[in-house]
Amino acid sequence: MQRVIIVGGGFGGLYAAKSLRKAPIDLTVVDRRNFHLFQPLLYQVATGGLSPGEIASPLRVVLKRQKNTRVWLGEVVDIDAANRRVILADGQLDYDILVLATGATHHYFGNPQWAALAPGLKTVEDATEIRSRILAAFEQAERETDPQKRRAWLTFVIVGGGPTGVELAGALGEIANDTLRHDFRSINPAEAQILLLEGSDRLLQAFPPDLSRAAEKELIGLCVRPRTHAQVTGIDPEGVTMRTAAGQERIPTRTVLWAAGVQASPLGKILEERAGAPLDRAGRVIVGPDLTVPGHPEIFVIGDLANVSHQTGKPLPGVAPVAMAEGRYVARSIQARLQSRSLPPFHYFNKGNLATIGRNEAVADFGKVRLSGFLAWLVWLFVHLMYLVEFDNRLLVLTEWVYNYITRNRGARLITGQRA
Amino acid sequence: MQRVIIVGGGFGGLYAAKSLRKAPIDLTVVDRRNFHLFQPLLYQVATGGLSPGEIASPLRVVLKRQKNTRVWLGEVVDIDAANRRVILADGQLDYDILVLATGATHHYFGNPQWAALAPGLKTVEDATEIRSRILAAFEQAERETDPQKRRAWLTFVIVGGGPTGVELAGALGEIANDTLRHDFRSINPAEAQILLLEGSDRLLQAFPPDLSRAAEKELIGLCVRPRTHAQVTGIDPEGVTMRTAAGQERIPTRTVLWAAGVQASPLGKILEERAGAPLDRAGRVIVGPDLTVPGHPEIFVIGDLANVSHQTGKPLPGVAPVAMAEGRYVARSIQARLQSRSLPPFHYFNKGNLATIGRNEAVADFGKVRLSGFLAWLVWLFVHLMYLVEFDNRLLVLTEWVYNYITRNRGARLITGQRA
Repeated sequence: MQRVIIVGGGFGGLYAAKSLRKAPIDLTVVDRRNFHLFQPLLYQVATGGLSPGEIASPLRVVLKRQKNTRVWLGEVVDIDAANRRVILADGQLDYDILVLATGATHHYFGNPQWAALAPGLKTVEDATEIRSRILAAFEQAERETDPQKRRAWLTFVIVGGGPTGVELAGALGEIANDTLRHDFRSINPAEAQILLLEGSDRLLQAFPPDLSRAAEKELIGLCVRPRTHAQVTGIDPEGVTMRTAAGQERIPTRTVLWAAGVQASPLGKILEERAGAPLDRAGRVIVGPDLTVPGHPEIFVIGDLANVSHQTGKPLPGVAPVAMAEGRYVARSIQARLQSRSLPPFHYFNKGNLATIGRNEAVADFGKVRLSGFLAWLVWLFVHLMYLVEFDNRLLVLTEWVYNYITRNRGARLITGQRA
Repeated sequence: MQRVIIVGGGFGGLYAAKSLRKAPIDLTVVDRRNFHLFQPLLYQVATGGLSPGEIASPLRVVLKRQKNTRVWLGEVVDIDAANRRVILADGQLDYDILVLATGATHHYFGNPQWAALAPGLKTVEDATEIRSRILAAFEQAERETDPQKRRAWLTFVIVGGGPTGVELAGALGEIANDTLRHDFRSINPAEAQILLLEGSDRLLQAFPPDLSRAAEKELIGLCVRPRTHAQVTGIDPEGVTMRTAAGQERIPTRTVLWAAGVQASPLGKILEERAGAPLDRAGRVIVGPDLTVPGHPEIFVIGDLANVSHQTGKPLPGVAPVAMAEGRYVARSIQARLQSRSLPPFHYFNKGNLATIGRNEAVADFGKVRLSGFLAWLVWLFVHLMYLVEFDNRLLVLTEWVYNYITRNRGARLITGQRA
């Protein structure tokens, strides 16, 4: 039987695995974490709306009924492409077909020292770290008597005006103006300043300009100040410096969140060395129309690690629907090969783009149809619940959501991480 | 206005604060964590049944409607009893009345090096650490080919046969025999050995002997092996050594959990130095019948930090109902003093003792009425839900519970803690 190894249990890898459930193959899913993370809702964990357990499903649970599949907890440190072998930190696995779907990580544009000062939002640990920082900042402000220092504690800067930055900023606006309203005695949380810095000329570059404007308006309604043409040039424990049209500017702040650059997983680089894979500037593997590495039809690369640009000349965006579609295509391709058939090139049908802003606003782009406000938010909610239907915890998340929506609750507001 | 400071937002401190909601005082609740933890359900987090956010409520949320109360996040490092001042790691607060309710921590009987090898279960971080260790042990066993090493990964030792040890062992039995049944390919989780070591002659010393026997039987039904008269003499990364009636014995194991000794919070020691408070061997403050420190009517000590023994000559047990009753008494006592009245001595009315074992068994001791099995479990469930009614997340926990019960789900099975 063909040995297929999928590395990475995110949207790309997991959907490939699920779509292979009936294939007569010997399938191994390797991940260094034991769970699939529903990343589009990670900002809800970072802002105390959901608990990590509610947006993560153990891979073994998701794949338990697939008799042809085993889950292997381990970290891939090298790929021996010549001998078709994956090298783990503690072992190795042989493959006939390899699917790499290890995603991307933060990228600080050559300033790795910013990582500790401005955490990004990719993992469960990132989310609980951000949650702790946001809550601790309000706690510090409550106790601070110096007005200037207090102001710095109540200033939150989010770097990057893409969907993650917009969602984080919206949720923060909600927290300051609504959730925490009656919680403090010395401060009024609504005094918080929330700045969303974007280097280009508008938020949500992937959306049409009118939706960028709508998103901006919705954010301002939540007391978020979006700043475009703002290039961050420095981050330190006391503040952020940036270059704007008007020159250098400094913002005193104690909380900076990073939602700007991403870089492909280091496995791209390894594939370049071991299999001669071409990489783009973000470290993504430039794959062919069949999503394989040139010269290596047995190695597929999908999701955020892949640069798939045969369709329009521009790489497809690093979002869950793209990764899922690629995963499904790879599964079909592997099954076709078993029957000595081949598939037409991968084609992504873009069903639309969504970003949510706070409690009940969003923007939605379906090509000709563009929505903003409450209607877009309902669409966003519906789509995300539909995705979650694939997982065990759908009912729970729905309940928690409805409950939080009605009660304006953010019960998961824990400052954790200390071994106290 | 009288300045009252309550240190500690556990059951004792929180119930004191809540009962003072209408008192004409200036009340400050100091805690180093920003949430109240519903500790009786912490074993559910440690075994993947509930998420931390579901058994913790932010103190600010619980106390937000109390206009006379402020929450102060900080760690008390000293008490200046002469000047009635609490010294924080970063500041100080003056009081007229002080209520200390900082609880207890693990105690390794003079073997502090065991702490890293055998984590106890007191904090949210403890619970997620234990969860990660249990799940990682099954993952390691799945990948281990040497049968002896595999057996060590599948052996779980719980030290201490009190309620926490019994609850952890029962939940582990359930996980091995039920939850994980179809999750692995190389191992059968039901092969796991779960050993519950108790130094004395029976489990659940606080219960009557017939209920200890019932609990033992229920545990054996979940494939847990209780071992009484088993004194742990050594813990190392590869196993546990113990002294039994038959002599020394060694159990090769990679997972040891600590549910044995507790020691009062270090504030007891500080109170001994600063206010001449008498301590017992566990470091608890021996308080008078009015729950104050001898010679210091302005300092109350309650909960697990207090030794309250005027009633029967034996200290009251360190359980939530005792702490809650003490908290309520202190609140009434403070209000009585405002009216220049005084209260009769504290009297604890024991409503009963409960411990749960797995999915639907428990033991319950109400004096004359003693229950075990499913009926006791229903009582346990009812009592715990009633407690939770005080908190915001009662509906959610109930939903999660019913859902988990029906689906036998333990969805929060995440191995977290790495900054990956």
